[in-house]
Amino acid sequence: MILINGISSAEISPNDRGLNYGDGLFETLAVVDNQPQHWERHLNRLRDGAKRLGISPPSDPDWWADFQSLKKLPAQTSRSVLKLLLTRGQGGRGYAPPALAQPTRIVRLLEWPSWPATLADTGISVAICRTRLGRNPVLAGIKHLNRLEQVLASAEIAALEGIHDGLMMDVENNVIESTKANLFVVKNGGLLTPQLHHAGICGVMRDLILDEADRSGIPVLETSLSLSALYAADEAFLCNSLIGIWPIHSIAATDRHLFDIGPITRSLQQALKNRGAVP
Amino acid sequence: MILINGISSAEISPNDRGLNYGDGLFETLAVVDNQPQHWERHLNRLRDGAKRLGISPPSDPDWWADFQSLKKLPAQTSRSVLKLLLTRGQGGRGYAPPALAQPTRIVRLLEWPSWPATLADTGISVAICRTRLGRNPVLAGIKHLNRLEQVLASAEIAALEGIHDGLMMDVENNVIESTKANLFVVKNGGLLTPQLHHAGICGVMRDLILDEADRSGIPVLETSLSLSALYAADEAFLCNSLIGIWPIHSIAATDRHLFDIGPITRSLQQALKNRGAVP
Repeated sequence: MILINGISSAEISPNDRGLNYGDGLFETLAVVDNQPQHWERHLNRLRDGAKRLGISPPSDPDWWADFQSLKKLPAQTSRSVLKLLLTRGQGGRGYAPPALAQPTRIVRLLEWPSWPATLADTGISVAICRTRLGRNPVLAGIKHLNRLEQVLASAEIAALEGIHDGLMMDVENNVIESTKANLFVVKNGGLLTPQLHHAGICGVMRDLILDEADRSGIPVLETSLSLSALYAADEAFLCNSLIGIWPIHSIAATDRHLFDIGPITRSLQQALKNRGAVP
Repeated sequence: MILINGISSAEISPNDRGLNYGDGLFETLAVVDNQPQHWERHLNRLRDGAKRLGISPPSDPDWWADFQSLKKLPAQTSRSVLKLLLTRGQGGRGYAPPALAQPTRIVRLLEWPSWPATLADTGISVAICRTRLGRNPVLAGIKHLNRLEQVLASAEIAALEGIHDGLMMDVENNVIESTKANLFVVKNGGLLTPQLHHAGICGVMRDLILDEADRSGIPVLETSLSLSALYAADEAFLCNSLIGIWPIHSIAATDRHLFDIGPITRSLQQALKNRGAVP
């Protein structure tokens, strides 16, 4: 189930700059009972990223019409994943973008991931990836298509038994995020989350949690986070649009580190659930 | 003129990991009188990069058969560009590579670039790009498909009159390369070129020049290079497989900096020309 520029077509041009240079962006949305969650936040993030890369984004109604076309197709289950992918389009001589690029818009409905539904309750075990994130302010925060670091880090994790995700540090030893989710820790009743000015992706669920914490009067600090500060935390969790919040119960490192799944993690899970903000 | 996995087909799957994550590599070769230059060096580099990314490379005869098929097509001029692109293939759940990926092999013959043939004689003017290169040893040196930094830097240069290329620094102020070529400078009769352990692409023409310098008894140092060391150089030039060697005659910066096109640059140009090593 794929639309390319609104047309039900199975393939794209090998001249597309998305393929040749990773010259584009994407969004991954949870679809619950045929409704995409946080549609406007995702579209806003895509538009902000496109602006930073100098790509002309399609109109929101174009994306919406694509989604409406796809959801009419049969075989929809109660939950699915909507992937929006935008590239600068075809052509240009070498790296330089063509003066008048026609962006490519790709919309796909995918199966819900097969992870156990209980992980939000039981929590997960993570490892520390050897693969680091590079630092570059010009790309930090954007959900762009240059994702080799995440691919290599995910390959590390896939080879480990009983590990659900991997935490990634940048090349200066700051803990930034996991291979696919943002990280929060709780310390003395407040939230800490890594600042994303030099590396990492500004997640939509991360923004929702920052808003929820503000609403609930939980203090939040966006800061640099060392591995030792992570180990010294009272609670820790990952978040993204598909998993909601996954508490971290252990980090498999030289010394195995255990966390309690504590009251702040549970209260944020409950608050987001009450708002229908998690899938 | 495109082959995908050896088949004359115009399009690729939107599930290809090259598109979704830039999960792949490429090579750009000069083809002169129907012969690709430095075929083995390019294939070796592609194989080394594939090994570092954990991608199974196609056999050299597969690539060669593709090239032979393409060159039988009409409309070949005396010089063209051969682009080999390899992705990890389709699928996988999220970033994690599928256990048994079938790599995608894309081979294209493209028109020779339209830059003036005289630039190797007259030299070029470059600017310093605002866009920096991130630093990450795990990806440094590889000609992979995560090239947003080069895209943004090239967009800067395209907007400037009379500038042929842009030099890029990494986020720690080391001069690394241009948007599309490697950099050498001459100082006191010896060559200096930026080391590429943290950022940059190990170019095939760069390797050829290192070999040629060795053969000619010109001392070479791979080192970190600051902007002030660049300005203090006696000569400077860029190199890649398509341009050969382009002397730099000026850098458009706050103070416009001029270089003489000196004897070492000219002797290397002549030596490579004598060996038929430049297009």
